[in-house]
Amino acid sequence: MITYNLTDTGPDSLYEYLCKCMKNDILQGTLKAGERLPSKRIFAANLGVSVVTVENAYAQLIAEGYIYSIPKRGFYVTDFNSMVTEQKETVSEETIPMAGGDTSYFADFSSNQTSSDLFPFTIWSKVIREILSDSRVQLMTNSPCGGIYDLRESIAKYLKDFRGMAVRPEQIIIGAGTEYLYGLLVQLLGNDKVYGVENPGYRKLESIYRSFQAPCEWISMDEAGICVPSLEDKGVDIVHVTPSHQYPTGIVMPISRRYELLGWASRKEGRYIIEDDYDSELRLSGQPIPTLQSIDMSEKVIYMNTFTKTLCSTVRISYMILPQKLLSLFYEKLSFYSCTVSNFEQYTLARFIEEGKFEVHVNRLRNHYRRKRDMLLEALKASRMKGKISVSGEEAGLHFLLAIHTKLSEQSVMEHAMSKGIKLVPLSDYYYGETRKQNIYVMNFSSIDVARADEIMERLYKSCN
Amino acid sequence: MITYNLTDTGPDSLYEYLCKCMKNDILQGTLKAGERLPSKRIFAANLGVSVVTVENAYAQLIAEGYIYSIPKRGFYVTDFNSMVTEQKETVSEETIPMAGGDTSYFADFSSNQTSSDLFPFTIWSKVIREILSDSRVQLMTNSPCGGIYDLRESIAKYLKDFRGMAVRPEQIIIGAGTEYLYGLLVQLLGNDKVYGVENPGYRKLESIYRSFQAPCEWISMDEAGICVPSLEDKGVDIVHVTPSHQYPTGIVMPISRRYELLGWASRKEGRYIIEDDYDSELRLSGQPIPTLQSIDMSEKVIYMNTFTKTLCSTVRISYMILPQKLLSLFYEKLSFYSCTVSNFEQYTLARFIEEGKFEVHVNRLRNHYRRKRDMLLEALKASRMKGKISVSGEEAGLHFLLAIHTKLSEQSVMEHAMSKGIKLVPLSDYYYGETRKQNIYVMNFSSIDVARADEIMERLYKSCN
Repeated sequence: MITYNLTDTGPDSLYEYLCKCMKNDILQGTLKAGERLPSKRIFAANLGVSVVTVENAYAQLIAEGYIYSIPKRGFYVTDFNSMVTEQKETVSEETIPMAGGDTSYFADFSSNQTSSDLFPFTIWSKVIREILSDSRVQLMTNSPCGGIYDLRESIAKYLKDFRGMAVRPEQIIIGAGTEYLYGLLVQLLGNDKVYGVENPGYRKLESIYRSFQAPCEWISMDEAGICVPSLEDKGVDIVHVTPSHQYPTGIVMPISRRYELLGWASRKEGRYIIEDDYDSELRLSGQPIPTLQSIDMSEKVIYMNTFTKTLCSTVRISYMILPQKLLSLFYEKLSFYSCTVSNFEQYTLARFIEEGKFEVHVNRLRNHYRRKRDMLLEALKASRMKGKISVSGEEAGLHFLLAIHTKLSEQSVMEHAMSKGIKLVPLSDYYYGETRKQNIYVMNFSSIDVARADEIMERLYKSCN
Repeated sequence: MITYNLTDTGPDSLYEYLCKCMKNDILQGTLKAGERLPSKRIFAANLGVSVVTVENAYAQLIAEGYIYSIPKRGFYVTDFNSMVTEQKETVSEETIPMAGGDTSYFADFSSNQTSSDLFPFTIWSKVIREILSDSRVQLMTNSPCGGIYDLRESIAKYLKDFRGMAVRPEQIIIGAGTEYLYGLLVQLLGNDKVYGVENPGYRKLESIYRSFQAPCEWISMDEAGICVPSLEDKGVDIVHVTPSHQYPTGIVMPISRRYELLGWASRKEGRYIIEDDYDSELRLSGQPIPTLQSIDMSEKVIYMNTFTKTLCSTVRISYMILPQKLLSLFYEKLSFYSCTVSNFEQYTLARFIEEGKFEVHVNRLRNHYRRKRDMLLEALKASRMKGKISVSGEEAGLHFLLAIHTKLSEQSVMEHAMSKGIKLVPLSDYYYGETRKQNIYVMNFSSIDVARADEIMERLYKSCN
């Protein structure tokens, strides 16, 4: 069995040090692709540390894509070779113009569609075929309003294993996209409540609330995320936040602000937090911070997540997790609605998750995007842009913020860039009212061809000088 | 800790007996809602039985909903308050019969689910396979908000060929079920409008309008359908009708009433008719009457239809056809929404229709149900029920009305029938307010075993005499 000397971990905690050792061995090939790792209990006994230490290390390595787990079987080292081959496939398929980036641009930073060629067609087709042949009765039996139990169960298990969240399947409500679920929430909580959204933030939210005639307030943010006093000032009842990776700033909300927010919610009856965890699976680096949902003891958090980022944007499956009190209200008020996702896709996804295929797929995505992000950031550093920029919010998801220090106006930079085939999206577009910081760009990199990275940076340099 | 004497379990096995004891304590309240149960190991030691016995008992109690488990924490007694809400859910759904026939009945006339064995699994699977292999780029490209163009085009063509309707694909909006589309319509037209629904009618509609805080009025019907003067009296702006085959009375609205209704709509700005054509494909006999949509010259009709009846209720695809004026408003106000149906199913259905497979399937369904209806009606005529009944609304769809002439009360007839394994649904359940006609039953026949027809009629006879 692998073993490490953990007597001197330097400034690192035990689990961080253990992580580093294992990463090193994986990268060196000492731990081989596909190799099964010792069970947590046995490994802990062997190292002379607690099981929790090994658990944390494994969780971190899973989150970073170095290892993966197969339910009931154990932990395995990620196969980097298959990733390389898959990358080759990717390249050959990239010649087919897919959705996402507008191919008339040299680089389109406005598209955040996940690369279509990463969709696991072969496995997905196989699972559909199996479901169509062995689950006919289930396929034809109407789904409960909250969704097929199998799917809710497999999501609950996934959340437990990978996000440390304790959720009962009954709390999970499946719907055809988060937009639909927001609509359900307005119907559940009432359009006489004041809804708060992050500023800058995801503008579509305001459109949805307005469409339901629900009052909506934009709430300022500081470097730790949404400003809690502002929620009080504006009389907000329900606040929508993206704590794992704020859209578009990329801020990861620190634990202190999370508690502050929970404190705000629990001070008054009828206050709720909608925690939108839209791209948490694609955390590329940094420490995981527990979700608001998992530290909420007052039934104030409605957790929301989607498969449109991790699977593909054209399969419309999202879910929300309701606290017990709201769950009863949901069944009382809204259970007359049929579930909006077809049984065929619910059962396919359930099996895809259950059999560990979703996890493998997410690891693959994460590796792919991490590599993409790293290559872009390295190209930035190696370019003439170096010294004229600062990068932030790069720890997760498919975008980071690029602040360009230049005397040119934002408008000029964008026009120059556009004339050179580079489509930029300014952060200022995401602000409502208030003073907008200039020359900060939301760099959605998912559809960027990284082979062009150096040339892109050179063109960017020319655009702001 | 709770404890039981397991020395004499009678005819039961140890675990069955333990189950019964625990159920009893839960129902009596000795074991309280939310109470944590002892761990399996400790409980087994305390009872002096094996862990497997306790495991089996817990598994059984979980399956029956008496207790639930929280991973890593333990087993808890179910909160019966929340169970009651879930029970309510079932009840509210039963008024709109959707679930499959309850097999514990000899004949369940409350279910109108289309038989699952009629779903064209082989062809559907084949089309999915083709789509998955030859349309990958399209599958991964985001759908326009109104739906995939291919699907809208094939629906337009189908409506032209089989319903004589001239519709441009652009006018068709695809959504995950008609319930979702009703919600979109309230957002489009405003919840300050007064919505009118047929009385008796599809009660779920009122729930939807109420959920959107839109005022809803029940409008009386006569033998030709909804009463137009009543629309004026109650200040209705938008009226929902089912002219092809009214639900549940089965009335086919004559052409004169159709024109009267169109006249009402065109007399005032802002009035609209929602024509719900939910089961028109299953017209079994009688003359076809043009849809309101096809005789509407003033852009006042919103046509709505679904594939949940003709394909299966678990594939969630419906559509509406907007008149030009509303279409512009739709794109202006609501085009920020993503389409709620996944590309995979949109493309599969498009090809299924295009290749004529949908038509073949609908013909097959129609023949199947016509045969079923005929056999039931013949059995009625040949039975002792003859002379004591009248049948109406049998020209289309999967139900007809059976009026029974008897001196017994509706309640007694239903109870007697129930005691003989026949589940009846009274028409009076579909009325809101007003005097309800008694002893008329909505006979949903889609899941009835016609081999039992004679025996069913005999039991019915005994129930009302």
